[in-house]
Amino acid sequence: MTRLFNDPTAFADEALEGFAAAHRRWVRSVTGGVVRAGGTPDGEVAVVVGGGSGHYPAFSGLVGRGLAHGAAVGNVFASPSAQQIRSVARAAHGGAGVLLMYGNYAGDVLHFGQAAERLAGEGVEVRTLAVTDDISSAGPGQPAERRGIAGDLPVFKAAAAAAEEGLPLDEVLRTAEHANARTRSFGIAFSGCTLPGAGHPLFTVPEGRMAVGLGIHGEPGIGEEPLPTADEAARLLVSTLLKELPDDVPTPEGARTAVILNGLGSVKYEELFVVYRTVAALLADAGVEIVEPEVGELVTSFDMAGVSLTLTWLDDRLERLWRAPADAPAHRKGALEAPAAASGPREEEADDTAAVPPASEESREAAATVLTALRALAGTVDEHVEELGRIDAVAGDGDHGIGMQRGSTAAHRAAAEALALGAGAGTVLTRAADAWADRAGGTSGALWGTILRALGTALGDQDAPTASRVADGVTEASAGVRRLGGAETGDKTMVDALVPFADTLADAVAAGEPLTGAWDRAATAAGSAAAATAELLPRKGRARPHAEKSLGTPDAGAHSLALITRAVHGVLHHDH
Amino acid sequence: MTRLFNDPTAFADEALEGFAAAHRRWVRSVTGGVVRAGGTPDGEVAVVVGGGSGHYPAFSGLVGRGLAHGAAVGNVFASPSAQQIRSVARAAHGGAGVLLMYGNYAGDVLHFGQAAERLAGEGVEVRTLAVTDDISSAGPGQPAERRGIAGDLPVFKAAAAAAEEGLPLDEVLRTAEHANARTRSFGIAFSGCTLPGAGHPLFTVPEGRMAVGLGIHGEPGIGEEPLPTADEAARLLVSTLLKELPDDVPTPEGARTAVILNGLGSVKYEELFVVYRTVAALLADAGVEIVEPEVGELVTSFDMAGVSLTLTWLDDRLERLWRAPADAPAHRKGALEAPAAASGPREEEADDTAAVPPASEESREAAATVLTALRALAGTVDEHVEELGRIDAVAGDGDHGIGMQRGSTAAHRAAAEALALGAGAGTVLTRAADAWADRAGGTSGALWGTILRALGTALGDQDAPTASRVADGVTEASAGVRRLGGAETGDKTMVDALVPFADTLADAVAAGEPLTGAWDRAATAAGSAAAATAELLPRKGRARPHAEKSLGTPDAGAHSLALITRAVHGVLHHDH
Repeated sequence: MTRLFNDPTAFADEALEGFAAAHRRWVRSVTGGVVRAGGTPDGEVAVVVGGGSGHYPAFSGLVGRGLAHGAAVGNVFASPSAQQIRSVARAAHGGAGVLLMYGNYAGDVLHFGQAAERLAGEGVEVRTLAVTDDISSAGPGQPAERRGIAGDLPVFKAAAAAAEEGLPLDEVLRTAEHANARTRSFGIAFSGCTLPGAGHPLFTVPEGRMAVGLGIHGEPGIGEEPLPTADEAARLLVSTLLKELPDDVPTPEGARTAVILNGLGSVKYEELFVVYRTVAALLADAGVEIVEPEVGELVTSFDMAGVSLTLTWLDDRLERLWRAPADAPAHRKGALEAPAAASGPREEEADDTAAVPPASEESREAAATVLTALRALAGTVDEHVEELGRIDAVAGDGDHGIGMQRGSTAAHRAAAEALALGAGAGTVLTRAADAWADRAGGTSGALWGTILRALGTALGDQDAPTASRVADGVTEASAGVRRLGGAETGDKTMVDALVPFADTLADAVAAGEPLTGAWDRAATAAGSAAAATAELLPRKGRARPHAEKSLGTPDAGAHSLALITRAVHGVLHHDH
Repeated sequence: MTRLFNDPTAFADEALEGFAAAHRRWVRSVTGGVVRAGGTPDGEVAVVVGGGSGHYPAFSGLVGRGLAHGAAVGNVFASPSAQQIRSVARAAHGGAGVLLMYGNYAGDVLHFGQAAERLAGEGVEVRTLAVTDDISSAGPGQPAERRGIAGDLPVFKAAAAAAEEGLPLDEVLRTAEHANARTRSFGIAFSGCTLPGAGHPLFTVPEGRMAVGLGIHGEPGIGEEPLPTADEAARLLVSTLLKELPDDVPTPEGARTAVILNGLGSVKYEELFVVYRTVAALLADAGVEIVEPEVGELVTSFDMAGVSLTLTWLDDRLERLWRAPADAPAHRKGALEAPAAASGPREEEADDTAAVPPASEESREAAATVLTALRALAGTVDEHVEELGRIDAVAGDGDHGIGMQRGSTAAHRAAAEALALGAGAGTVLTRAADAWADRAGGTSGALWGTILRALGTALGDQDAPTASRVADGVTEASAGVRRLGGAETGDKTMVDALVPFADTLADAVAAGEPLTGAWDRAATAAGSAAAATAELLPRKGRARPHAEKSLGTPDAGAHSLALITRAVHGVLHHDH
């Protein structure tokens, strides 16, 4: 929802003021909107765009060289008035006429039409073009009834680039019409936006569902379907658009297209990239060549959750215009001055070799037990992944469970591969350690990598894995974790459980207890210590990075260590 | 929440693939992340940044000329592993050493530290720098305990621009350290993000409250306060940062600073601009000169709702580095090649003159009644603004109430001004008409402007406003609205109520009924017609722009017309 505003009725004006203040290099304010800071070159047709507020970067963010010469900016989701449009057009006029461009909504059609009449009456040569890219808003037989959504950008840009080439007004208009006829969009939505000062969103979509055929003013779509995966969403968008090619593009095979994957507001970049990955693959499968794609927020609807795909089917001329340089606050392309000389790509790192060092029979047998323990470990983490995330979310970022799951799964897989290659216990553990650290990332990945590596080093690939070797490995692991993380017991981290575990194990083994019993005792000590850290949680949200994020965040790391030592005990107990 | 994903555990990898596919001009994929497409110039220090996924444009979006040479990209909110970082660093190495840069989180500190050790062991000259700009995460005496948030960008950029100047590794490091010491951030949050596949957000903030001192991994902040207005938010951010200047910046007066107002994900551009408007004013009040501000999403946390302010206090050298050209997918600055010649600013439109045409005594008296009617009209709209919005939201964008409120308030104000200047009824109505159309924007603004203007033309400034003049004006208004909007009765628009109103009024007046009684009868007819349109609502979401958006969207426009005619009747009844 929209939360940051003062007087809601002043929102659009204040937003425009702030926008202009932040972008003085590009724009200057005039009554009704903004024009290019440097003005329109003499004798160049001025492209003046516009529409309501709430769609940034449409429309003010598209003013600048190679794009619009001015933007008339209305109130929230409301067309600018004819008076505003006229004022911006007069300020942008470079003596060669004005092309007014806007999305095809009745309010805009009315006001831009009235402005055009007034301008013409004042002797300004003027033409208008309404963008009609949204194929969900009317059938293929009624293109003039269609709304304009993210297709605004390529159509505006084609016209502006044609103007920059010095074409006369009617040629610029024809270029815009041609680009509009070649541009199609289709979108889906998951939730509506809430306007400044409003108590609830303009529409809602039931949990787990999506609206198909979105509008950009809270129009809720023409149908409803189950929430798709990212790949399914990509397939729906691409297949819908490939069903309706422009008349003069008989087949996608061999065609070129500009692609815009547009986020409506709160679908975020990473999600857009996941969808784009499949959009690109599907278009390639259809034989379409993608030209300079744009993935991001180009025409929004406040914080609406939705995504739309726009294709502009290019010919040589439209491709040149799409590739032409542009320098607006929200859309820049083309080479910067004085590019630095750069050398070619460098070689990449080769993977570690798959071969394992030779190992004794004894160590290979022990390696099988290690694999069983790692499987139990990964199983325990799987079982408790949500619980670990929940604990971690109290003071951390809630990813402890997921990170542990990724790491332990990768460790188990790497161990199984190493074992299959004939590795001993030491190598199995070291390979597992590297895989855990590499796949889990995060703090817990580094620390569990250290723990497994210490154990692997202590066991080696030749000797029998005696209780005292195991205890030595655990002691070294405990020391390594403290060294790496810079934490000690009492800092409310994994160390709080690891140190009593290691110390109890070492003491019991030194006292002659067999490994299974000693491990049992040590796991119990770790469990008690982990439970105790829950009592000591720091004040919620206290944000010292090293105490908080280091060592798996308080409590969650200790808790998972206790769970794991207990699970491994089950394996040892069964094995002996 | 994050909705578009496939397998949540594959999310970060798939996002990186999609990112690289969309940005081939800038980057190429290597094991562990991305490097510049063109590689690192020979003999240039390579700046390799990195961190978890979920923060786009950090970190992959910051790779390109003038910015990073490579980015190591970890899993969601998890540090990249040492192995990933090493791989990216080796691919980015241009023979002059590598500076590894990252936010100060323990996971990143561990993995980047391990990577540095390995690289050094392989003969690569390497340094590390953790960014520590977040002043909410530790006190001024513990700068090394602070987290890195949106200050990443100016610190990375300073180092990269220094590298591009050809400085050796230790000088690049010193530059980065200096920029980091001069960079401070502070943020507020309104809601947490939901990770891919998770069932609930990492944290929540109670409705109407905000968390103060946000983190970018769902850390919920260090305190909680009531939700601020945009201006209050700006004051909190600016005053907090002005309280802690760098040691070598004794006073803000006369100082220069780079400014980043960063959106965390679902605080949208327009909101950021409203806040920036006041941030800029407050900094100017304090005597601070703002240099090339950035307002947008630079370091995010999925769809978290929050905003942070970053100030980098510049000296001549840091200012030059901040202004240096950059060309990364998510951050571009500097001049494009071959800028077009542009003429200077043009003259702006003068306001309409305030003087009013001469009017008869009779017409000035009638004008006072018109003003009373416009006050009643605005009052009725005020009372029903939410109801009108609700009705409009069924098939439209829900802004009918707000637009009507803006328009009628502006119309009343303009009418009062005109009356004070001695205007007659005709001019009072025409001024009100222009103000309504200009301030309301949208469809209803254009239509109500037409209605008031038609009435004003019929009444004029000389003659007494007889019942038949009023009826003629309403008839002309009805015809004008149909002409302008292209709708007829039965299209489920305002016309459905306006036509029976006009026809009933004309018939009653022609039959000799006095204005009050005739208006009463006409208002009743409009009310019945408006009620009937509710029965005829089109299928929800059917999106033909002209039928839906034109004429105030079905029902809401008819409803407000009925309300207004009834309110005006009250004025006429009282007046006669």
